[in-house]
Amino acid sequence: MSVSASASASVTQRAGGVRRICICGVGLIGGSFALGLRAAGFDGEIVGSGRSADNLARGVELGVIDRYSTDLAAAAAGADLLLLAVPMGAMRAVLERVAPALREDAIVSDAGSVKGSFAADARAVLGDSLRRVVPGHPIAGTENSGVEAAFATLYRQRRVILTPLDETAPAATEAVAGLWRLCGAEVECLSVEQHDRVLAATSHLPHMLAFSLVDTLATMQSRDEIFRYAAGGFRDFTRIASSDPVMWRDICVANRGALLEVVEELIEHFQQLRDAIERGDATAIHDTFLRAKAARDAHLDKFSRCAE
Amino acid sequence: MSVSASASASVTQRAGGVRRICICGVGLIGGSFALGLRAAGFDGEIVGSGRSADNLARGVELGVIDRYSTDLAAAAAGADLLLLAVPMGAMRAVLERVAPALREDAIVSDAGSVKGSFAADARAVLGDSLRRVVPGHPIAGTENSGVEAAFATLYRQRRVILTPLDETAPAATEAVAGLWRLCGAEVECLSVEQHDRVLAATSHLPHMLAFSLVDTLATMQSRDEIFRYAAGGFRDFTRIASSDPVMWRDICVANRGALLEVVEELIEHFQQLRDAIERGDATAIHDTFLRAKAARDAHLDKFSRCAE
Repeated sequence: MSVSASASASVTQRAGGVRRICICGVGLIGGSFALGLRAAGFDGEIVGSGRSADNLARGVELGVIDRYSTDLAAAAAGADLLLLAVPMGAMRAVLERVAPALREDAIVSDAGSVKGSFAADARAVLGDSLRRVVPGHPIAGTENSGVEAAFATLYRQRRVILTPLDETAPAATEAVAGLWRLCGAEVECLSVEQHDRVLAATSHLPHMLAFSLVDTLATMQSRDEIFRYAAGGFRDFTRIASSDPVMWRDICVANRGALLEVVEELIEHFQQLRDAIERGDATAIHDTFLRAKAARDAHLDKFSRCAE
Repeated sequence: MSVSASASASVTQRAGGVRRICICGVGLIGGSFALGLRAAGFDGEIVGSGRSADNLARGVELGVIDRYSTDLAAAAAGADLLLLAVPMGAMRAVLERVAPALREDAIVSDAGSVKGSFAADARAVLGDSLRRVVPGHPIAGTENSGVEAAFATLYRQRRVILTPLDETAPAATEAVAGLWRLCGAEVECLSVEQHDRVLAATSHLPHMLAFSLVDTLATMQSRDEIFRYAAGGFRDFTRIASSDPVMWRDICVANRGALLEVVEELIEHFQQLRDAIERGDATAIHDTFLRAKAARDAHLDKFSRCAE
């Protein structure tokens, strides 16, 4: 895409002056961030890093990144901004490796699904310069992974939640917000704790349930028969069970506290429904289903507005 | 649609000689059956019945049915085939009302999601003429209901399971199968028990889980915040929680035995996953997610083939 000089200047401004970005983890999330910026006319340099040279080379081929190094320190040297888009369990090790190579004023952000553990990792590794740390989480994704799955419009009209720390400099938050807005996202700020509580309920718990349901059925004797007669509802319901197991393992470990709280509430509720079915209490069953349908239908507009 | 005389004769043949159909319950399921037959060139008469005259009048307006009566006996008089597409809990009362008005050789089928309870209802009411009873279940649907939600292609490339009784005449089963095939469906036969066990796992349990999850979140203090940050995964996962509460209440009551069995297995599995998260057992969590993803991905082809 050819962009005029003034448009390019405006894009740089909207990007908070960020000119060189290093993305660690060039998969669906990191790759779509790069593609979204490019589509918006960002003409700075985007450097990729990660463990798989094949994936990174493919990223260059696909025009997702400009160049790459599997040596994270080399990739991050001179960057204005580092985005970590790796599984939660890899964050701390990556931060430790990259910290010595980072410019002192380089902004450090991430795209992980749990903000408490990233904040703790950043405190542990970058404790003396937290003003540049901007934890973030784009509420978007598909069940696919890898750079081949990335696409420029993934974040369009999706929410991105930033959870700046007490120490974070407002200018750093604004720069990160500006980049996500270039990708088409609506940026909002929450506290780390709010974020982790809300996401445990709407994302982490549903993933646990979907994985658990599919694994339960898959270990039954009649598994072939069961999957044979599964319909569209089952396919939609279990779509998230095709997500990356490593990423979701790490999320469950990282958000253990908030997740276990909602898990307890769900188990209790589900057992009450089970009991109602056992005693044939049609009224209790009906009331539960009616409340659920009413809640979903009422909120459908709100969440479909930000999801298509 | 204008259909040539020979095409019409062939359609009548494929419909097992059925010329007049009475559909009791002209909603998504019953209405789509009528529209599918019409689209295939069926030119017999389709008479609707049900409780809501408004819905039935709308059915005539939309060309779904030719005429209607809210008096079920009047609607069913002279029909070659009666299809019951009402909630499971209404089946027996409807059968009792219609039985005296039915022609002796009229075929009686249904589209309910539980076959054990329909078989029991048919035995109780039509015990002396079970040869004409063909329990059936189209594995298709959407979360919408009412005749406005009906469409001609709902059953195209979907499975319809028939569960003929020991007493059922093969010719009756063939006639019903022929009509569903005209709608574009793939017809298969299972035993009543097989059907109810399989559907408890792939359909009834997921609906319970989706209703339960949404109701759990909807009763939390932070419900507005929670729904605000829900993403596409949550929307898909909970789509089935927008289904008709009465229909699903009846299914849970009617398939209690098979449903409680899979509910127990799911609760046990889910609690094991919860325990693994509690003790931070990353390996156990990962193994579960990996098995689930592998099972879903492996079966995806099979069930997407019959679901789009």
